[in-house]
Amino acid sequence: MNDKKPLILISNDDGVTAKGINELINTLRPIGDIIAVAPNAPRSGAACSLTVTTPVFYKLNHEEEGLKIFSCSGTPVDCIKLALHSIVPRRPDLVIGGINHGDNSAVNVHYSGTMGIVLEGCMKGIPSIGYSLCDHNPDADFNPLKKHIIEITSEVLKHGLPEGICLNVNFPLTETFKGVRICRQTRGVWSNEWASCPHPYKDNYYWLTGSFQKSEMAEDCDAWALSNGYVAITPVKIDVTAYEVIEPMKKWNLSF
Amino acid sequence: MNDKKPLILISNDDGVTAKGINELINTLRPIGDIIAVAPNAPRSGAACSLTVTTPVFYKLNHEEEGLKIFSCSGTPVDCIKLALHSIVPRRPDLVIGGINHGDNSAVNVHYSGTMGIVLEGCMKGIPSIGYSLCDHNPDADFNPLKKHIIEITSEVLKHGLPEGICLNVNFPLTETFKGVRICRQTRGVWSNEWASCPHPYKDNYYWLTGSFQKSEMAEDCDAWALSNGYVAITPVKIDVTAYEVIEPMKKWNLSF
Repeated sequence: MNDKKPLILISNDDGVTAKGINELINTLRPIGDIIAVAPNAPRSGAACSLTVTTPVFYKLNHEEEGLKIFSCSGTPVDCIKLALHSIVPRRPDLVIGGINHGDNSAVNVHYSGTMGIVLEGCMKGIPSIGYSLCDHNPDADFNPLKKHIIEITSEVLKHGLPEGICLNVNFPLTETFKGVRICRQTRGVWSNEWASCPHPYKDNYYWLTGSFQKSEMAEDCDAWALSNGYVAITPVKIDVTAYEVIEPMKKWNLSF
Repeated sequence: MNDKKPLILISNDDGVTAKGINELINTLRPIGDIIAVAPNAPRSGAACSLTVTTPVFYKLNHEEEGLKIFSCSGTPVDCIKLALHSIVPRRPDLVIGGINHGDNSAVNVHYSGTMGIVLEGCMKGIPSIGYSLCDHNPDADFNPLKKHIIEITSEVLKHGLPEGICLNVNFPLTETFKGVRICRQTRGVWSNEWASCPHPYKDNYYWLTGSFQKSEMAEDCDAWALSNGYVAITPVKIDVTAYEVIEPMKKWNLSF
């Protein structure tokens, strides 16, 4: 590892063997030294979850000049916590999650293991970015994303990010992008979320599924950008306080 | 179930047998009909995680007038999603998570399965509250909390909550509370997060641990309230957009 090049810590939630993370590693090697610490199995929908009832292991899978790849038994957030505690030789300049096989825009930010990685990096004070492609295909074509990922990553290295703020970058499924939009999170709700199947001996079992119903389609929303062929960059905050209700709630009748 | 009484959907992340959820059920029975759907095993640190690689099951554990308790094989968020899809006879008036055995203030909101429940209820448009006690003891004394939980829950039933906003309520470990504070989320960072133990055959394994370093202690922060004997109510938003950086970021050099 070269002290003069940026050090980039990478993880994902699709697992260390997924195409997306390996394409991300290859894309970013020209601009930094890479340490990847990623789950040893798929962890989609892991959010910011932690492993608390079992211990966590990691092992080195691959090493060459400027690159080390580890697999880890924990969640995506465990990967970042463990990497920062035990694996990296110095504080990384960036934490990057992805490239996720699937959309993390709108309220999906809350369920996303990719964004769990990014929130964790951000909570540790490191500029952090999540990259996701709106395509669940395990062999998705990430080539159209590469120059944009280099550009966005380089801009974050140059400008940094304010304390407590990270980026959720989603790419639409199209070969050419119309441009990039700095967006806000789209309001909406998941519905029809379970497919039930009869169990051979008792009751049903349920598979998570569902469709996302956007409740708005304004031009400043990430879902609008993606539906219209734009790359959506949604800046995300660690501080989730609803400041606007603090004063009104002080008038509630809470007689302590 | 009585159509004229409020219907309250309850879950937790410590599991259906934990003392906290059973104390919560008993506390709230006088003010509503209760359906509890809670994980069949501890799920601390589950955040908003989902079960996507296996199917999910649930079963009825207990039924009496105005109360049904189910256990579920999924995460806390799965419990709420499945309850709303398949279990409740009508839309609940409230979704409540807890009472959690442990503190969910400050950045812990991001890791908390209790707050995963609350965020999920809120995303579904239902007024939602998380209750947590700063005490990990499985036999913690929840009695001092009860009248305050009835009061806060009743106020939420009366006032409702604005769209996209839910409540994170944390109780300090003390027998009498000095009062209640409407707070903002405290900034801070977890450190020393892993205890390593030698594996008998290879390398180490790691247990998640750590200490939370508050980087501020202002009187409007939830950590300050808890450290000073107050109940901390932190209103939380679903929309995590960092609006303040949208305009500055439009000046970045992103040449699409």
